[in-house]
Amino acid sequence: MSSPKLQVAVAGLGRMGLRHARHFATLTPRAELIAVSSPVQAELDAAKREWPSVRTYLDYDELLREETGLQAVVVASATTIHAEQAIKAIEKGLHVMCEKPLSTSPEISQSVVTAYKQSIKKFPAQKVICGFSRRFDASYRDAHRRMANGDIGVPSVFRSQTCDKLDPSGFFVAYAEFSGGIFVDCSIHDIDLALWFFGEDSVVKSVTAVGITAVQPELRKHNDRDNAIGIIEFYGGKIAQLYCSRMMAAGQEDTTEIFGTEGKIAVNTQPQLNLVNLYESTGIRREIPPDYYGRFREAFITEANEFTASCLDNTPPPMRLDGAVKAVKIGCALQESLITGKKIEFDEIGRRIETAKL
Amino acid sequence: MSSPKLQVAVAGLGRMGLRHARHFATLTPRAELIAVSSPVQAELDAAKREWPSVRTYLDYDELLREETGLQAVVVASATTIHAEQAIKAIEKGLHVMCEKPLSTSPEISQSVVTAYKQSIKKFPAQKVICGFSRRFDASYRDAHRRMANGDIGVPSVFRSQTCDKLDPSGFFVAYAEFSGGIFVDCSIHDIDLALWFFGEDSVVKSVTAVGITAVQPELRKHNDRDNAIGIIEFYGGKIAQLYCSRMMAAGQEDTTEIFGTEGKIAVNTQPQLNLVNLYESTGIRREIPPDYYGRFREAFITEANEFTASCLDNTPPPMRLDGAVKAVKIGCALQESLITGKKIEFDEIGRRIETAKL
Amino acid sequence: MSSPKLQVAVAGLGRMGLRHARHFATLTPRAELIAVSSPVQAELDAAKREWPSVRTYLDYDELLREETGLQAVVVASATTIHAEQAIKAIEKGLHVMCEKPLSTSPEISQSVVTAYKQSIKKFPAQKVICGFSRRFDASYRDAHRRMANGDIGVPSVFRSQTCDKLDPSGFFVAYAEFSGGIFVDCSIHDIDLALWFFGEDSVVKSVTAVGITAVQPELRKHNDRDNAIGIIEFYGGKIAQLYCSRMMAAGQEDTTEIFGTEGKIAVNTQPQLNLVNLYESTGIRREIPPDYYGRFREAFITEANEFTASCLDNTPPPMRLDGAVKAVKIGCALQESLITGKKIEFDEIGRRIETAKL
Amino acid sequence: MSSPKLQVAVAGLGRMGLRHARHFATLTPRAELIAVSSPVQAELDAAKREWPSVRTYLDYDELLREETGLQAVVVASATTIHAEQAIKAIEKGLHVMCEKPLSTSPEISQSVVTAYKQSIKKFPAQKVICGFSRRFDASYRDAHRRMANGDIGVPSVFRSQTCDKLDPSGFFVAYAEFSGGIFVDCSIHDIDLALWFFGEDSVVKSVTAVGITAVQPELRKHNDRDNAIGIIEFYGGKIAQLYCSRMMAAGQEDTTEIFGTEGKIAVNTQPQLNLVNLYESTGIRREIPPDYYGRFREAFITEANEFTASCLDNTPPPMRLDGAVKAVKIGCALQESLITGKKIEFDEIGRRIETAKL
Repeated sequence: MSSPKLQVAVAGLGRMGLRHARHFATLTPRAELIAVSSPVQAELDAAKREWPSVRTYLDYDELLREETGLQAVVVASATTIHAEQAIKAIEKGLHVMCEKPLSTSPEISQSVVTAYKQSIKKFPAQKVICGFSRRFDASYRDAHRRMANGDIGVPSVFRSQTCDKLDPSGFFVAYAEFSGGIFVDCSIHDIDLALWFFGEDSVVKSVTAVGITAVQPELRKHNDRDNAIGIIEFYGGKIAQLYCSRMMAAGQEDTTEIFGTEGKIAVNTQPQLNLVNLYESTGIRREIPPDYYGRFREAFITEANEFTASCLDNTPPPMRLDGAVKAVKIGCALQESLITGKKIEFDEIGRRIETAKL
Repeated sequence: MSSPKLQVAVAGLGRMGLRHARHFATLTPRAELIAVSSPVQAELDAAKREWPSVRTYLDYDELLREETGLQAVVVASATTIHAEQAIKAIEKGLHVMCEKPLSTSPEISQSVVTAYKQSIKKFPAQKVICGFSRRFDASYRDAHRRMANGDIGVPSVFRSQTCDKLDPSGFFVAYAEFSGGIFVDCSIHDIDLALWFFGEDSVVKSVTAVGITAVQPELRKHNDRDNAIGIIEFYGGKIAQLYCSRMMAAGQEDTTEIFGTEGKIAVNTQPQLNLVNLYESTGIRREIPPDYYGRFREAFITEANEFTASCLDNTPPPMRLDGAVKAVKIGCALQESLITGKKIEFDEIGRRIETAKL
Repeated sequence: MSSPKLQVAVAGLGRMGLRHARHFATLTPRAELIAVSSPVQAELDAAKREWPSVRTYLDYDELLREETGLQAVVVASATTIHAEQAIKAIEKGLHVMCEKPLSTSPEISQSVVTAYKQSIKKFPAQKVICGFSRRFDASYRDAHRRMANGDIGVPSVFRSQTCDKLDPSGFFVAYAEFSGGIFVDCSIHDIDLALWFFGEDSVVKSVTAVGITAVQPELRKHNDRDNAIGIIEFYGGKIAQLYCSRMMAAGQEDTTEIFGTEGKIAVNTQPQLNLVNLYESTGIRREIPPDYYGRFREAFITEANEFTASCLDNTPPPMRLDGAVKAVKIGCALQESLITGKKIEFDEIGRRIETAKL
Repeated sequence: MSSPKLQVAVAGLGRMGLRHARHFATLTPRAELIAVSSPVQAELDAAKREWPSVRTYLDYDELLREETGLQAVVVASATTIHAEQAIKAIEKGLHVMCEKPLSTSPEISQSVVTAYKQSIKKFPAQKVICGFSRRFDASYRDAHRRMANGDIGVPSVFRSQTCDKLDPSGFFVAYAEFSGGIFVDCSIHDIDLALWFFGEDSVVKSVTAVGITAVQPELRKHNDRDNAIGIIEFYGGKIAQLYCSRMMAAGQEDTTEIFGTEGKIAVNTQPQLNLVNLYESTGIRREIPPDYYGRFREAFITEANEFTASCLDNTPPPMRLDGAVKAVKIGCALQESLITGKKIEFDEIGRRIETAKL
């Protein structure tokens, strides 16, 4: 109780930023939320009402300058400034937990890793992670533990999907302008999981993707789709199948299966909101989580707590940062294949194989 | 193909009679439906249209007299004449498959058994069974096989329910006049299963029941209820819990659990119509069978085929007839307890223990 | 963040006491654990190591005397001293959250309520609750909300079970000496739920129970059983069916169904540990929570937070205290019926109807 | 009963041939099995024992010559002679039900359709179908009916898998020599379903596939794989994702999902052998069907009965024959892509687009 708490600031108070702020303010006992930044004054005002003692900043740089006791920054701003804000905090020696993706550009994503590699020489206890929330989910961890334990033999086929509930408001059309596309925005989680289950050093042999705009043809102006299927082929005899969609009727359907030579592990193939089943004149019904947060709230809280513990106790962070770059690279390649219709191939050291110009 | 087929008549062409007739006419390759009887001319006319070669009778006795090639009778008439029709066929040396219950009266039920015991001396190959359809259901058989194999240790607690979909037409109110009451009509199946799983020689120590009329208060005029709960205590440390209802919204919910000292087997605790799940804006939904026949159709067909095989091949019938009397006795005792509010106790040789008059 | 935290002490550091202490120490942001008591020095030592700033007491009375800043006490000691410790705290004007049951005796349970009714005149903001954890479970709350909303018509039949995993160590045999018996210890939760769903003012008409000792015959020396079935009949046409067991093979199986005139709500009828399914050579398998805490941990944490909020904000406590006495009364009547084999009846104002001596 | 029965012969008495023979012999009341052919004398001997009145032939041509009363032939021989035997029967004006695939070659498959188109001019009541058994499955039919009814809006994404239980005997390695490869052998069903759900006139835009040999590297010598993933892109904004495997641990896992713009239908995403769940010390377990027949037996029987009815009553056959050619074409293209690693594209009238030589 009396041990000092990690002094945390959150950059960005949008949908996820506000959630992170709340997790650190009230659900992470070893952390203390001391400051927030947002370019939106109304968001800062609301934060002030919710946590009167927390200091608020319109300017992230000012926050970094003023908050001399600061130890860690949670970057949860717009994706386009993730990398810039993360690097600034890294260079000050602060711990950083950055929302995914580091950037929609592999190069910019890499620059965060480079900055961290540089900085850690000076600040050897510094922790920087990119928040792939599913790695903190109890079910995914149980699945990974069993796989690592050899329960399914050699994991060989991976199938995973991130399928969002249809949002008829048109939000995703506007969002698509900067999201990097459906593979970078949605499937990035599935790609990260594939790397986690197949090994983070797995080398991609090829990617292919196809997609459609079944409900929101306007997405095409941003080179995006509302439903897409992708295949990732890895060297060493492993394959992954992805499905991403923004068209689900019932709610969030994020499911994953890992097929091994001796068994299979399925995560969330029977989605559910809770343990309630309703018996009605139309049959038996259960609800499912309406969105990503409804499914993974506990994982986000675990993430906040484990990141905090890792910073305070100087223990290894829960995941490698460079995996986040790899996931973005794969996501971008899938998105490119989705748009061009071409299969993209790589050699065994990860260099793209240029096919003949057609 | 060329071996002679069992020559079968069906008595009664109501809901279940017609189904039995169809099963024997087209889904029991080793049987041939040759005649039907019904007191309702329209039912006979319909049968004639469906099977032109089948002979029809308004009078069951005439059928027995005229059909000299007849080998087996399926009694599926009104419950009140089950016993009488069964006994007439038995006395002619015919095989009999009688719909449950033999009678709503234990004494009359017993008279069928007595007639059979008498008749079999003269016709040693004669088969008479009372159709407890669940014993022919693949899932119940799988459960019984596992239990008999010792998979759950000693079966000790049994819980089972027969819960019908609400029929707002008032059918059950009229039906209750002759049904023997909800425990004799619905729970008879669960009682038979309890005897099957605990052993047919199990001795009842006590029965208790309570009930309500939640949706059809008119049932009270026939001393019946629309929802009832019962407990059967057996000598030897075994207990059974029953629930019967005519109020289900979603469809037929017949579930059974057998708790043993080393495990439990559950049958149909997740009811379903088929393997389809519907993902809709209100969640995930599946339908369930609307009625008893929707759940047990395959079992009825198996019953027809196994009864036929037993008759043709002179192999032991699939179940003992005297169990049917025992089930009726228990059902009647539960029904009495339901109405009087008294617990009824029995000694170790099955005699009722009269409690002091209160 | 800066608002003062509820100053809490926990009495008892056994299995549940330690859990409560942890919930208040680290998972209840608005509370501060300041002191603990236990008659076991080793437990206090362990607490000191876990929370160096928390003060420890061998003597509960000393804790009450010394901790002048104390605002709330969590009573989680042995059941036999729940009431005494609760009353002492109540009389000091402290808020109290007492583990269930208040006592295994209805009279002693009532004495806690009486003390609270007396005390609240002097301390009108005082909160005293008995912790029925399931009322804080998200699934039960969802079920209750739907029922209260009329989604299933009139709730008429209630079926619930508390079934513990078999503990072959013999723990429960020793525990049975003071537990009040399986209906008071296990089914108390189901009884409380029945009252919650049917209305806390529901009047019991009769109770009946039977039971067996399938795995631990030694329980008989404490007048207890390892499997028991009970029926509660309420005035007004409502019935409840209970099953309690200490023999489950797979883990904790606590399920509840509420049958209404227009639908049914089922809670946890498909138990599961998490969202993982394992596909193995023997089929598809999932694990289930090993114990009560595995199933209800989140509910306990919610309970701690809501109790804290109610104390700090002087809002109504999440449940009425007198319901806890009623649940014990019903549990004791069921336990008596279990042992005597007699049905116990009550009149419409709750007085027991004495049947003729037999 | 007295109406004449369809006179049926079965060619081939291997695994599926024997099953078809049994279905027609005893589970298709309107059909009569009169003859069988097989090049294996032992199989004929066994058939003779099972059905003494059935005539047996080592030579299929002789069967066709001798059986003058023959009306229909079920071709269930080795895949390599499906087409030849089918065409011979077609040219005699017989009804034909041919096991899938017509051939592993699109051209040969087409020749069967051509023969039928020719023959039907002379025998206008002639029925020829290729047995895609899933179209007769109650769950798939329910799914299709709901989709056709508009329940899920516009079907846009299709995902389906045929995953066999691992057979460690090496059977599939030998079988792969003539099977046409995993996409032609297994996925042909999923492809047929895709055409059924998306419309049989759907035009393929591209196919891509990847695969591995996780458990049986010997398959490579026959240009086959034991796990493969494929994508089919259709003109008109529809995409399909396939997975085929011969590596499942638990049993047959054939699941299908159809994602529409307003909902999704899932078939068999929770596979099960029956309605039994086993509660054991390791959790809750259910078995699943061990093989394709275990899952689809009822569908095969329905197929036999509906084919028979269509022949006897001269009603439209349950499916179009040319779809079977289309499915083979798509399967062959996927298999080619699997082996070459190239995406294969088609123009809007189905002609393959040759990409630049690389």
